[in-house]
Amino acid sequence: YVPKSFDLKKPCKHFVLYLHNIAYDGDNAANATAATIVKPLGLGDHSFGELIIINNPVTLDQNYLSKPVARAQGFYFYNMKTNYNAWVAWTLVFNSTKHKGTFTIMDANPFGLQPARDLSIVGGTGDFLMTRGIATFKTKLTQGSKYFCVEMNIKLYECY
Amino acid sequence: YVPKSFDLKKPCKHFVLYLHNIAYDGDNAANATAATIVKPLGLGDHSFGELIIINNPVTLDQNYLSKPVARAQGFYFYNMKTNYNAWVAWTLVFNSTKHKGTFTIMDANPFGLQPARDLSIVGGTGDFLMTRGIATFKTKLTQGSKYFCVEMNIKLYECY
Repeated sequence: YVPKSFDLKKPCKHFVLYLHNIAYDGDNAANATAATIVKPLGLGDHSFGELIIINNPVTLDQNYLSKPVARAQGFYFYNMKTNYNAWVAWTLVFNSTKHKGTFTIMDANPFGLQPARDLSIVGGTGDFLMTRGIATFKTKLTQGSKYFCVEMNIKLYECY
Repeated sequence: YVPKSFDLKKPCKHFVLYLHNIAYDGDNAANATAATIVKPLGLGDHSFGELIIINNPVTLDQNYLSKPVARAQGFYFYNMKTNYNAWVAWTLVFNSTKHKGTFTIMDANPFGLQPARDLSIVGGTGDFLMTRGIATFKTKLTQGSKYFCVEMNIKLYECY
């Protein structure tokens, strides 16, 4: 097989999305979209070992009340003693007239160390069949452990 | 681009690395690089269900005190009742003048059953943008549940 060639400056698909993480705190079941299932270990003081499962809304702008165009489903955990650093596996699930299908972002996410970080996009289905590419994350807003918003600049280099 | 068609004997990048796993035992916070966040279930007697999060040093030789060239970030868990078998998702994060970027190894790791096992490399960023290939693991040293060293023979077959 010979996949389509790609030019870094010309992804075959390119869009910017915003993910909203609303942490479950025991009282906000109706609004919560993410929840800690394993508490931090107490190894260092940057939540090492905390494992969070998510089903987060993804919108076209930074307003978490905008109509979601996708859901980010998956998990992340913190894995550094000296700074905030995570490992992420998030599948973006699109289920609208505009887009139907999924693609999965999986990589280290040094959000405490770098304002912008690249993560791998490792596969997809439906409109995103067999896709691969890069998602550049930038943290836009954090409110303690309650809420954060991440900008995801999605560049797909293999589209079918 | 048209990726080089690949010949199993001629990877586009080929190097051998050593991963060092120093388990947190509650007293070695300063030296620990990996920690169990879910204890074994007690299903069978090969740690079924134990989930470990890692940020392990990766060196060019078997000496765990050598200067790391990368960090292996991710997790693994045991999933067999009758023998030692694991499932692994490890991202190698390179942050040196020589290499900048990541690639992710994800697969079953039958370390109790096979001296050498092949795992998939499913994607990458930076110097390893969009890479794919195979990592052949060999366990070099195990010290009870405290420490192990794994040789990772990395063969990348798609490089950009």
